[in-house]
Amino acid sequence: MPKNLFQGLCAFPLTPLRDQHIDETAFTALLARLTDAGVDALGVLGSTGSYAYLTREERARITRLAVENAGDTPVMVSIGALRLDDILYLADDAQRAGVSGVMLAPVSYQTPTQDEAFRLYERVTAALSVPLCVYENVPTTGFTFSDELLTQVARLPGVGSIKLNRLPADKAGFAAELRTRLPAGVALGVSGDRQSPAALAAGFDVWFSVLGGLFPRVCLAMTRAARRGDPRGEEALAPLWALFDAHGSLRVVAAAAEIMGVAAAPALPFPLQAIGGEDRRALEAFLATGLLS
Amino acid sequence: MPKNLFQGLCAFPLTPLRDQHIDETAFTALLARLTDAGVDALGVLGSTGSYAYLTREERARITRLAVENAGDTPVMVSIGALRLDDILYLADDAQRAGVSGVMLAPVSYQTPTQDEAFRLYERVTAALSVPLCVYENVPTTGFTFSDELLTQVARLPGVGSIKLNRLPADKAGFAAELRTRLPAGVALGVSGDRQSPAALAAGFDVWFSVLGGLFPRVCLAMTRAARRGDPRGEEALAPLWALFDAHGSLRVVAAAAEIMGVAAAPALPFPLQAIGGEDRRALEAFLATGLLS
Repeated sequence: MPKNLFQGLCAFPLTPLRDQHIDETAFTALLARLTDAGVDALGVLGSTGSYAYLTREERARITRLAVENAGDTPVMVSIGALRLDDILYLADDAQRAGVSGVMLAPVSYQTPTQDEAFRLYERVTAALSVPLCVYENVPTTGFTFSDELLTQVARLPGVGSIKLNRLPADKAGFAAELRTRLPAGVALGVSGDRQSPAALAAGFDVWFSVLGGLFPRVCLAMTRAARRGDPRGEEALAPLWALFDAHGSLRVVAAAAEIMGVAAAPALPFPLQAIGGEDRRALEAFLATGLLS
Repeated sequence: MPKNLFQGLCAFPLTPLRDQHIDETAFTALLARLTDAGVDALGVLGSTGSYAYLTREERARITRLAVENAGDTPVMVSIGALRLDDILYLADDAQRAGVSGVMLAPVSYQTPTQDEAFRLYERVTAALSVPLCVYENVPTTGFTFSDELLTQVARLPGVGSIKLNRLPADKAGFAAELRTRLPAGVALGVSGDRQSPAALAAGFDVWFSVLGGLFPRVCLAMTRAARRGDPRGEEALAPLWALFDAHGSLRVVAAAAEIMGVAAAPALPFPLQAIGGEDRRALEAFLATGLLS
């Protein structure tokens, strides 16, 4: 049975840099970790993959590498950019490369209005031939979907999933409420690794995972347990969540990749920096526990 | 006497689009309005000039057009981008074109840490041969300078000005306090048109003006009055400030340019939209009062 792009664990690898250029060897090795472990899907060039910092050419190259190396694992890439024309070029590049889906957050400099965001999704979905994941990411975009807008956008043709990271405490009630508003074919996706196993257990379909992009085995185990109604990781990984909260998941996962030697330091586009100092040593100690292997 | 880039009224023109491409004729005509009126400086490709939405090539073209058409009016351009390498390319393009200064906000997707922002300004100032305006714009970047960071950055070699838009009620006290912390040569700049005449009257050096980019005569008169200790515009232009508050100054000024026929509609990069509907008609009525001519 072919894998479903919007079901289970969609792992988001870093796009490691070396001397501020994309490190194709390191990226391909990261992909192999994920396909070997058997993740359900690859979320390439997500926020974790630094898409917003890369050129169109770099994004096209990473996308082609991902599709060529993914085997039968479906690949989704972000096509986010500030301007519609650029988004459409990126969509075209992604579709030519053979991706199974694309993801779009309302990336902003001038924060879009609800109406501007709707028009953007309307224009983009009209140009797509693969499913779109609608991505709400308030911290990076400054944009919050109203309930009404999310419903409207999810009803556009070609929308395959929504990706939310602000979930209320009653996740099951929230998932049920979303199902009443959204078309049946739209998968419910969650990001924010700490809360995601609980969201899967509460009825969400897919975990868009930063942690899964570097530690696929532990996240696949958490995914399977969560889908049996047994969400795990909240307590066992508490030291990691504290680092995520303090620095953002990207700076932590990049440091882990550097520590493990799967990415050269500095792996992130300047001025972004992987965590250093005492917190990096705490991360190193946490990695040494083996809880993430 | 040559004009001082960081003194008086620095006017920020739109970068008008036509069919989503830069409209060189309309842009040049906008520049002529500003140089004819005698603004002190041009702030090209600011937030009002949609820099964040334009390609490197478009930005280089607009920069060259500005320098070629500015006469003896100094030109400043934004070199803002997410990634250091891109900022350095833009700085190089700007300097080759012959600008008198550049401006940089900590543009973000992953909001930079204070340390990341400092390192960014450190690297950029080391590469510049023209003065830099350090630009805090919390709504568009999500980044807030700590007092300590602002002081540190302002002390970097080559910093000519800071541009702030969050001013306390006691503007004179704030300006005096800033002068104790910042090097003597660093000009105090303000943006946010409603508050700027009061800031000039309270001791700020330069008004970085959105309104001045389309209505230079009224803003020059307000600048001169403010520097005589007589800030104006707060009440007389209240209907305009209400529109700025509701929609952001860019969408309002773009609509005004469209209404006046100095820019083709839609003038802004999609998905951004000039204001429409009832508020556009209110703007049209306000323009008809002649208060801005």
